[in-house]
Amino acid sequence: MMRNLLLLLCAPLVFGQGDEIRAMMKASEAAWNRGDLATFAADYEDSPETTCIGRDITHGGVQAILARYRRGYSTPEAMGTLTYSEIEVRPLGPDYALANGRFALKRTAAGGGDAAGRFTLVLKKTKAGWKIIHDHSS
Amino acid sequence: MMRNLLLLLCAPLVFGQGDEIRAMMKASEAAWNRGDLATFAADYEDSPETTCIGRDITHGGVQAILARYRRGYSTPEAMGTLTYSEIEVRPLGPDYALANGRFALKRTAAGGGDAAGRFTLVLKKTKAGWKIIHDHSS
Repeated sequence: MMRNLLLLLCAPLVFGQGDEIRAMMKASEAAWNRGDLATFAADYEDSPETTCIGRDITHGGVQAILARYRRGYSTPEAMGTLTYSEIEVRPLGPDYALANGRFALKRTAAGGGDAAGRFTLVLKKTKAGWKIIHDHSS
Repeated sequence: MMRNLLLLLCAPLVFGQGDEIRAMMKASEAAWNRGDLATFAADYEDSPETTCIGRDITHGGVQAILARYRRGYSTPEAMGTLTYSEIEVRPLGPDYALANGRFALKRTAAGGGDAAGRFTLVLKKTKAGWKIIHDHSS
């Protein structure tokens, strides 16, 4: 009991921004995989400065990002099952971080077939936790 | 004369990191377009942590980046003429910056034909000026 309490108290000192961002990405994967695009899009900073590069560039906050994903992934089949891997996180000073890794979508042929690529995320520490201010996925 | 001197003295106060990074990219474009890949690659931080994502990910310093570009662009025809456009620069605290924009390669059919896409650069302020610590181009 005492040991658990100590672990609990020490947790904020033990987990760095890398762990916080990895935990965020686990939650993002889970949101995608239950079809919850609103939660997925809420990881982006709700600012007109937020950018998302895929085939083209989208500027805008959570609603713009959400609209982009709803256009691209309109059915559960098109969303498929998302897995992130090879995640690397680097601090950029105390308030920003850079994450990159691999994404893979497992999908039926009707959903568009399997897809995979790499992502770059730039994240900012806010009062509401880490938020994505720039995404480049290809 | 006096006015020019004043302008000169004030320049460091007037030009922010956005201008410094835009100037760096102009020089990078010029290095590419005279076939000088060594100067082009010297804009990357010479560190094993530096990453470059294109079709796959390269980890490593200037030599690794240079080898990657020499493999991909082995002739003046394959290099073609590079133009950056739609450049956006955002500060990430005092020591880091995020730049994104469009690149276009004008090439002959023998060189591989025209190519274009978007890039994301994460840059770090060092004693030797701004250096790219991460590049994602697609």
